[in-house]
Amino acid sequence: MDIQEFFGQSSGRWFSQRTSHHLAFKQTESGQSQLTIELVPVTDAAVIALCQQYEIDPSLASCGARVSWDGTMAWDEEKHQGSTVLVTVPDAPDSLTGQLLREVGYAEKTPVAGRYVMGDDGSLTLITEYETMYSEERLWFASPNLRLRTSILKRFGGFSMATFCSEIRLGVTKPPEEAATVAASK
Amino acid sequence: MDIQEFFGQSSGRWFSQRTSHHLAFKQTESGQSQLTIELVPVTDAAVIALCQQYEIDPSLASCGARVSWDGTMAWDEEKHQGSTVLVTVPDAPDSLTGQLLREVGYAEKTPVAGRYVMGDDGSLTLITEYETMYSEERLWFASPNLRLRTSILKRFGGFSMATFCSEIRLGVTKPPEEAATVAASK
Repeated sequence: MDIQEFFGQSSGRWFSQRTSHHLAFKQTESGQSQLTIELVPVTDAAVIALCQQYEIDPSLASCGARVSWDGTMAWDEEKHQGSTVLVTVPDAPDSLTGQLLREVGYAEKTPVAGRYVMGDDGSLTLITEYETMYSEERLWFASPNLRLRTSILKRFGGFSMATFCSEIRLGVTKPPEEAATVAASK
Repeated sequence: MDIQEFFGQSSGRWFSQRTSHHLAFKQTESGQSQLTIELVPVTDAAVIALCQQYEIDPSLASCGARVSWDGTMAWDEEKHQGSTVLVTVPDAPDSLTGQLLREVGYAEKTPVAGRYVMGDDGSLTLITEYETMYSEERLWFASPNLRLRTSILKRFGGFSMATFCSEIRLGVTKPPEEAATVAASK
């Protein structure tokens, strides 16, 4: 699977169950959210603007996606809503590695591009290094309708958090009582 | 990393945080346990007995380990204690794939050997197929003192559960308030 196929298969609406293990405190936090992933053509104004923010030639972009989320985490019980645009820029036209660009909030100083690696096993690994933080995320499909994600976060040199998400595709037209199991099995 | 190195690095005492996502019910269950993994020589009586139970020549075994656990899950708040012996039998002397033998309880009918695959990325994948159940587990080291595990369980053809464990090595001699973070970063 290449990055275009991975983005294509990710497109849609997902129900996401997320759990974070806070390693030093030995505590667990869980939450749920609905994710919407829409593919965006690489000629879209949002893709071009993001490339320009990172000072990258927009014609090198291979994929674009808008990711929106709407959910809650147990600890604060607040609604977490938002959306971002992601763009991939391969190291060479057919490379399995490259840069991942994300929209930067106003509070952040300079944009930090992540690195992505498509594995032989169809997994997508994303690595982002900030000044005091390092994040490594792995995403893979157990089936076309069940996507799994793990991430580990390092702060000041020590691992601080491990997170797991299981994401079930929504909108698969089956009777409600079967939908989740059936969707995940397809 | 080969299977011997993976077993060697797994040896020790671990604090494990486990979370299961019940996919059809959209519910999460968490628990904690202490794991002890001791290497057992392949000439040990327990390894030989397990091979014989599976009708496999004990001289083909490459690794043996005794895994003990002591923990709780949130839903029943009961103590879960137990131990089992694991034995690996490679498909050929230097193969990265093979069979994983586990001790069988009295309630089970016939022993079912799992399959293991050591990946290029140092991960260990375990696959077990029963009559109505399929389990796929992936274990990897984020660092020598932080081991991660995911597993997915299929019942009657549909994915029913996704589980994540983060395991921090215990007994690293550092001040208590730093131990978890420091252990995980090493």
